[in-house]
Amino acid sequence: MSIYLDWAATSPPDPALLAEGVEIACTGYGNPSSEHGAGKKGAALLAQARERCARALAVKSDTLIFTSGGTESDYLPMLALNQRPVRGSIAVSAIEHPAVFEQAKMMENTGWEMLVIPATEEGFITPEAVIATIRRDTAFVAVMAVNNETGAIQNVTEIASELIHGCAGRKKPHFHVDAVQAAGKTDLVLSTEGIDSAAISGHKIQGPRGTGLLYLSKRIEPYIRGGGQEAGQRPGTENLAGAWALSKALEKSMGDMNAEKAAALMAHLISSLALMKEIAIIPSTRTPSDIRFSPWIVQFTNTKLPGEVLVRILSGKDIYISMGSACSSRKKTRPVLEAMNVSGDKQQNAFRISIGRTTTKEDIDVFISALASVLSDF
Amino acid sequence: MSIYLDWAATSPPDPALLAEGVEIACTGYGNPSSEHGAGKKGAALLAQARERCARALAVKSDTLIFTSGGTESDYLPMLALNQRPVRGSIAVSAIEHPAVFEQAKMMENTGWEMLVIPATEEGFITPEAVIATIRRDTAFVAVMAVNNETGAIQNVTEIASELIHGCAGRKKPHFHVDAVQAAGKTDLVLSTEGIDSAAISGHKIQGPRGTGLLYLSKRIEPYIRGGGQEAGQRPGTENLAGAWALSKALEKSMGDMNAEKAAALMAHLISSLALMKEIAIIPSTRTPSDIRFSPWIVQFTNTKLPGEVLVRILSGKDIYISMGSACSSRKKTRPVLEAMNVSGDKQQNAFRISIGRTTTKEDIDVFISALASVLSDF
Repeated sequence: MSIYLDWAATSPPDPALLAEGVEIACTGYGNPSSEHGAGKKGAALLAQARERCARALAVKSDTLIFTSGGTESDYLPMLALNQRPVRGSIAVSAIEHPAVFEQAKMMENTGWEMLVIPATEEGFITPEAVIATIRRDTAFVAVMAVNNETGAIQNVTEIASELIHGCAGRKKPHFHVDAVQAAGKTDLVLSTEGIDSAAISGHKIQGPRGTGLLYLSKRIEPYIRGGGQEAGQRPGTENLAGAWALSKALEKSMGDMNAEKAAALMAHLISSLALMKEIAIIPSTRTPSDIRFSPWIVQFTNTKLPGEVLVRILSGKDIYISMGSACSSRKKTRPVLEAMNVSGDKQQNAFRISIGRTTTKEDIDVFISALASVLSDF
Repeated sequence: MSIYLDWAATSPPDPALLAEGVEIACTGYGNPSSEHGAGKKGAALLAQARERCARALAVKSDTLIFTSGGTESDYLPMLALNQRPVRGSIAVSAIEHPAVFEQAKMMENTGWEMLVIPATEEGFITPEAVIATIRRDTAFVAVMAVNNETGAIQNVTEIASELIHGCAGRKKPHFHVDAVQAAGKTDLVLSTEGIDSAAISGHKIQGPRGTGLLYLSKRIEPYIRGGGQEAGQRPGTENLAGAWALSKALEKSMGDMNAEKAAALMAHLISSLALMKEIAIIPSTRTPSDIRFSPWIVQFTNTKLPGEVLVRILSGKDIYISMGSACSSRKKTRPVLEAMNVSGDKQQNAFRISIGRTTTKEDIDVFISALASVLSDF
């Protein structure tokens, strides 16, 4: 039996939910945009899926757009800027996921200036840092809800509020929140005033790959066009099976968040590794039950081995951990740790543990023993 | 039992293929970008799916990018233009699907001039029309392989060749082919010299929604960035279940095209409706076994009822046909028929029949009787 501790990269899907999606795909196979009975049935099921997501997220159903995943939900609001006749700046936090950060860099090729909002050494983006970074010409701000490498919960509610106040008398920038590691895992009130859009991914919560949600407090001028599906905000034949399974996954994860169980496991993990002299937590100030961090994600470093080697050795023992974002696995640098001013050695030797709904104390204990054994071997 | 004659909008999925996708999603759940064993297993399965698609399409596997569907495969190459420092024109045929046509219109908001390549009254785009439309500053040309409303097969091979010759001495425009109604249904050699990209959709060939392929003869400078998946051409965690089921659907449809069966059914349908005085085929020159048209799609018009009403009445009898593109169902005009110079009355009363792998002669005969009965009632 393998031990999977890389839930922040992707979660093992819930087979029953995926099977239910397939069943819905077969019974409601009509194109929801078609005028005949098969189409209307598909449209009705899609509406049900959207309502279910809206209930789970406590938002109005017309604020939710089904997309192909977190990445698409991240880029759609940013691309919408590119129809404006003038350019200015966009501000993204230094700890954003590549889906936001790399896309923001691309925006520089289209005339925008990219401003980077600095993080504290603990990996937080303060409202003050946001306000200090933006300028009068800043049209877009992105700060993620939960960092995917450290689990640091960002105070997006206060950032939203500060943006409203700080931009009084001029047009507030569009505020986008990448909520991929937050939805179904930590508290986040999407309908917070000042949050204009948010991205959610299905496969991080045991739903299907290729599914996501874009929350939009109000409609954007779409940059991507086509058949006008999803209220004109996202074209392409609606993926009913995916939307259905995503809605069920969201309902399940929100209804049964297991945050307490996760917090207990995380405290156990952090306390245990605190006893190992070769291991340090990142940031060093994180305590075992620190509520400033997601109980599902933690970053450590060690004094003996590069993270890459540790990942490989543990994988040989069927224990799956990661260095950080799977989406950054092709890179040699660790931008999030860099932004936190973590030294090169510590960056190199860092590793991430991320747990999920089915993780047990036994899994954690097997990992701890294996880690101790590996470190003592070197 | 309902009779489904709207396969060009979407096809009833193959339950076994979708179930197989789910099984693969559960066994190969690791993020293909992860470095551990679970990730490597996912990556290996994804590579197998890509190889299977490549074999079915007779192209090299590194030319295929998995996407979320036909629409995304259509817009990715077009968006790539928007990183260029200069603007010019893009030329799209008058009969393109909204995924191409509406996106091309949007490109006008970003500084491009949109040129429309006129169709003949039979609904064909001639190489001469393409060459006459493009200019020295044309950076992009799109002509679909098979029209989704009339079934007219476009000579994209000759268009590709004429573009090479017609642009000798200067940079040939990127030539994109929307192959959504062609893949698995008609002959199309994707690797034809001069075709730079092509779009394929999973759900038109009984595969899952939310899946597609982008064929790229060579890499483009991606406009959409993120985690660098799909060789940097398309970000987002790879949808292995979708890619797998798509590869199987493609293999099945290419290996067992049933084009002869479709041609026989289509000839029967067209011959039968030719006997009904209230019915005319569009274009009027299409013969029952006309190889210039896809045997899977046909457009008719009638003298008695708006297409909309006909669709609704037949739907009441559990017979599902359509007016045209489901993606255009929100519009009152019929741009493809307009481009063919079909009169307003005929446009209004037009309807599309599209068949698929499981369509039987009985289905066609039930439809013919029902149609005759409806028309005689008015």
